Amino acid sequence: MAAGLDSLGQCLERYLPAEQLEEVKRILYGEHVRPLDLPSVATSAAAERNFELLGYGFQAEPEQLRQPRVVRVGLIQNKIPLPTSALVAEQVAALHKRIEEIVEVAAMCKVNVVCFQEAWTMPFAFCTREKLPWTEYAESAEDGPTTRFCQKLAKKHNMVVVSPILERDDVHGGTLWNTAVVISNSGAVLGKSRKNHIPRIGDFNESTYYMEGDRGHPVFQTQFGKIAVNICFGRHHPLNWLMYSLNGAEIIFNPSATIGKLSESMWPIEARNAAIANHCFTCAINRVGTELYPNPFTSGDGGEAHHDLGHFYGSSYVASPDGSRTPELSRTQDGLLVAEMDLNLCRQVGDKWNFKMTGRYEMYAKELAAAVQPNFVPNIIHE
Amino acid sequence: MAAGLDSLGQCLERYLPAEQLEEVKRILYGEHVRPLDLPSVATSAAAERNFELLGYGFQAEPEQLRQPRVVRVGLIQNKIPLPTSALVAEQVAALHKRIEEIVEVAAMCKVNVVCFQEAWTMPFAFCTREKLPWTEYAESAEDGPTTRFCQKLAKKHNMVVVSPILERDDVHGGTLWNTAVVISNSGAVLGKSRKNHIPRIGDFNESTYYMEGDRGHPVFQTQFGKIAVNICFGRHHPLNWLMYSLNGAEIIFNPSATIGKLSESMWPIEARNAAIANHCFTCAINRVGTELYPNPFTSGDGGEAHHDLGHFYGSSYVASPDGSRTPELSRTQDGLLVAEMDLNLCRQVGDKWNFKMTGRYEMYAKELAAAVQPNFVPNIIHE
Repeated sequence: MAAGLDSLGQCLERYLPAEQLEEVKRILYGEHVRPLDLPSVATSAAAERNFELLGYGFQAEPEQLRQPRVVRVGLIQNKIPLPTSALVAEQVAALHKRIEEIVEVAAMCKVNVVCFQEAWTMPFAFCTREKLPWTEYAESAEDGPTTRFCQKLAKKHNMVVVSPILERDDVHGGTLWNTAVVISNSGAVLGKSRKNHIPRIGDFNESTYYMEGDRGHPVFQTQFGKIAVNICFGRHHPLNWLMYSLNGAEIIFNPSATIGKLSESMWPIEARNAAIANHCFTCAINRVGTELYPNPFTSGDGGEAHHDLGHFYGSSYVASPDGSRTPELSRTQDGLLVAEMDLNLCRQVGDKWNFKMTGRYEMYAKELAAAVQPNFVPNIIHE
Repeated sequence: MAAGLDSLGQCLERYLPAEQLEEVKRILYGEHVRPLDLPSVATSAAAERNFELLGYGFQAEPEQLRQPRVVRVGLIQNKIPLPTSALVAEQVAALHKRIEEIVEVAAMCKVNVVCFQEAWTMPFAFCTREKLPWTEYAESAEDGPTTRFCQKLAKKHNMVVVSPILERDDVHGGTLWNTAVVISNSGAVLGKSRKNHIPRIGDFNESTYYMEGDRGHPVFQTQFGKIAVNICFGRHHPLNWLMYSLNGAEIIFNPSATIGKLSESMWPIEARNAAIANHCFTCAINRVGTELYPNPFTSGDGGEAHHDLGHFYGSSYVASPDGSRTPELSRTQDGLLVAEMDLNLCRQVGDKWNFKMTGRYEMYAKELAAAVQPNFVPNIIHE
């Protein structure tokens, strides 16, 4: 399947005259993002290891009573290094190795909090509707091999690690969950956050593997600010973002797996809207590449059986509460996006726009409670 | 104040090679919008009357049991024709005349539902913080001169008219409201919808003129589908869009007045996100031009006193539930955007993406009710 354009941002840079480019970028990306000066050792390591490295910074105003709270986050998007037909243990090992070498570069870039893509230790195999071998990728969130691997990374690099995996919950009947494990820079497991909204669309047959999250909207207080994780399909639900924000999140990660044919015109909109609506930073991470499966499957669209879900178009980006955003990572290549932000911007933008103050949540709590009742009568005015 | 680029869409058309242009448009606007073939009598009338006329169409799949429900909506953005120092009655008359001549062209284009910009019968004078003469623009929603004017237009052209005005509510203490009057194509007043969220930002001093709407989220059943009106600042509140949608709205208009310096990078995001999140069409309308006031005022930003709020950047557009959208009207000129849509697309996209089904509103009603309590404890996990 053709992957198309490498990068929207690069395409605009190439063809638009300087004056128009500046105005187009202002309208598309906002005014407040600047390129970061990343160390050359990182730039050359990224080139050597064959992934794109981009860095951007967002600024806040100086305040009298609060010091700036400058944080660097890292967003990693990557292809699966081995064919999906390789042994499970070998695929996991190859992914661990790939992530390790990208995280090393993140450390060179002084990243404080890193987040990987959704279900990062496996191919996104739910499209196959097969259980084995794919459910073998599930691990304990608390002490599975991937969590232990991330704990080592976290401690070594003094970095908070957000590790979205397929979770096997042996304490509760051995059920599966789609879970992000949050590991402190101390190396301790801070906790976990489960995907709250499960897709029922196309080949995203995830609802036959796991259920909607049962842990609400936890926010994790780290040394580098309060973070939360809204996994994949939850980005379509503005209320999901809102509740993480009402619990105090300053940065909400959105590790995802989504394909061009389905969602590409929605991708730049949803996480960015959430950053605006909730006065916080959002970090949208998508897989990249096309993953081929051994057995063919159909898509419920009348088409022929095929071996892939489609092209994961990468395009990971960071959006700021002031409406600006970074350009996106490549649509076709592995990448690390480093974004520097002063978290004081969240409250500054909140005090400017006042969406929380003007939110009328009590009214909406009542209206929503009424709307789900069996006897709900929509407010429709007829002539 | 410099207004900048005339139009983002035109700029891309001019400079990008055909192949890249197509791919950039797919990523920026989605795949499913096509130019409409508008009658030449309309095109030449628009040119003669000095406003931009654009037309686009969205399609839906054919169904067996439902006929297509094809509707044409018209979005009008316009400058104030007279200086703000002219007499109130003369300014209103000039605006009525300008709108009448644009609506005539909308009728030539077979528009079924037309919507004007926020507080369309007046300059957007709340930045001045002066009461007179600006509050003299307020009228009865039920039988003020502007409503009667719109009733004539509606009947003459067999067109539903959405008329956002400053409302004087003499039944309730003579208070002011920011209100959209919805007039049926029969000429009858169907009802009204009040602005639910009032800005507290910059020079948008509206909260000293009127209060948050008290009418909830009404939806109007018209001959051409179920419509609702989310006025201006309400577009920043995802819950506001959601409640109109849960009450059944298929098209939500967002008549607005917003300026470049403040919101331009947010403008393409918010209404479009609402169309996606709620499986409905959204129509974002912004004023255009710079309005100069007789008396200077400051902006609470340390700057000099000045005579204008800033440049209203137009850029009105329509977004579809499938994530696609039309290009925008000009950033600097009056305009009429005609959009044709098959409303069957709303349910088709809903059945595909299932955001309502997966919305978990009962959980959010409870979480929101808890979040507004004085003893609310945010869900924050510490090491």
